[in-house]
Amino acid sequence: MRPEHVRMVLVEPSLGANVGAAARAIKTMGLDTLHLVSPRQFPHPDATAMASGADDILDRAQVHETLDDALVGTTLVVGLSARQRTLSCPVETPRESAPRLIAEAEQRPVAVLFGRERVGLTNEELDRCHRLVQIPANPDYSSLNIAASVQVMAYELRMAGLADVAPEQPTSEWPPATADDMERFYTHLQRVLQRIDFLDPANPRALMRRLRLFFGRARPDHNEMQILRGVLAHVEKGLDGTLRRGGGE
Amino acid sequence: MRPEHVRMVLVEPSLGANVGAAARAIKTMGLDTLHLVSPRQFPHPDATAMASGADDILDRAQVHETLDDALVGTTLVVGLSARQRTLSCPVETPRESAPRLIAEAEQRPVAVLFGRERVGLTNEELDRCHRLVQIPANPDYSSLNIAASVQVMAYELRMAGLADVAPEQPTSEWPPATADDMERFYTHLQRVLQRIDFLDPANPRALMRRLRLFFGRARPDHNEMQILRGVLAHVEKGLDGTLRRGGGE
Repeated sequence: MRPEHVRMVLVEPSLGANVGAAARAIKTMGLDTLHLVSPRQFPHPDATAMASGADDILDRAQVHETLDDALVGTTLVVGLSARQRTLSCPVETPRESAPRLIAEAEQRPVAVLFGRERVGLTNEELDRCHRLVQIPANPDYSSLNIAASVQVMAYELRMAGLADVAPEQPTSEWPPATADDMERFYTHLQRVLQRIDFLDPANPRALMRRLRLFFGRARPDHNEMQILRGVLAHVEKGLDGTLRRGGGE
Repeated sequence: MRPEHVRMVLVEPSLGANVGAAARAIKTMGLDTLHLVSPRQFPHPDATAMASGADDILDRAQVHETLDDALVGTTLVVGLSARQRTLSCPVETPRESAPRLIAEAEQRPVAVLFGRERVGLTNEELDRCHRLVQIPANPDYSSLNIAASVQVMAYELRMAGLADVAPEQPTSEWPPATADDMERFYTHLQRVLQRIDFLDPANPRALMRRLRLFFGRARPDHNEMQILRGVLAHVEKGLDGTLRRGGGE
């Protein structure tokens, strides 16, 4: 297990106490990388108090302005979600998710996203995820405290790391596209879809979400990503009338 | 699973906040019986605050003067312990322990003991246990918060209780694209890639195979296939100069 490749990412936590409790949770489970996206109270005495000996995790915590910043370089992103979504990527339990994350983290950085105390992750943030992770909680009261969710997920990651998991059979000789590669692709794709009048500029999100789900599920590798970007670039040239014959791959 | 038969027992907790957080943890996992042995702060505003909607658990919590009182009627008792004991009953992980507890609880009450914040359970209290449960924590920092231990243990109990239930695999509302849909798509894709001069007509197979691998892995559903075909059709219209404004999905 490579703890430095497992980013536990808290998105806009309100309470310093929760950041501290999360730090303690991840340290007890042998992880060491806490990432914070726009935390409201950090650094904060409550965080230090609740960390209770895990203050080295707080000292090393990386603070980001945006979620995209926190995800740079990651190739597998999962998000904790309490609600059932109508339109969503695959949903799995922590137990199903952890071995996959651990196997991927042997090679490359992965991220686990935890949302805000009251409202969780936004749809836009969930769109960054390859999979949603749902702790199979009591349907009548599914509201785990953030640090409790971090504890459960970190526990499953530790159990998976201890289980001597055989790494997932690599489907490709190429590394997967990174989260930032994917964002650049989606931006490019949206531009082209608007030019060919396929995307309703008044409501781009419905279609883009469907496409994100589709390409997120496929998890293109680096080479496939280059092909997809190449296709988009050539479509643009075709529309511009600037295609040179003899191009190609 | 019979939640009323699973007693989660906190032995002399110091902080009301921990009692409240433990109540929340057990409610999220579908348990409902919190037992407290000589709690220092209970009832307490911190407990209510941390319970955050699980105050019914606090209301029903049973307060005992001695551990033995809390154990009356139970037939299986396990105790959480961070330390390795030289002389002790069998030690197991939460994952090993939970199915046994759930099975026993089908018939009779069982108890899970959690010790004090700083010093855990005394040897005398551990002697009440049939087994010790050790969360396989980081050996360099194994100090889980009590509520975090309760969360992990309650989570494993819930997982064990759900184990019979087949995991619900959320499937797309749409059926997968058929093999013939896929073939029509690849033919269409190849035609467009040639028009935008991305595909080498002398050797189409290398690129098309990569794309087949990619889209085959993604397994588009019927709706996604319609979107992909729509994108291709619009690219062709764009290249023909026959786009009508107001098109789209």
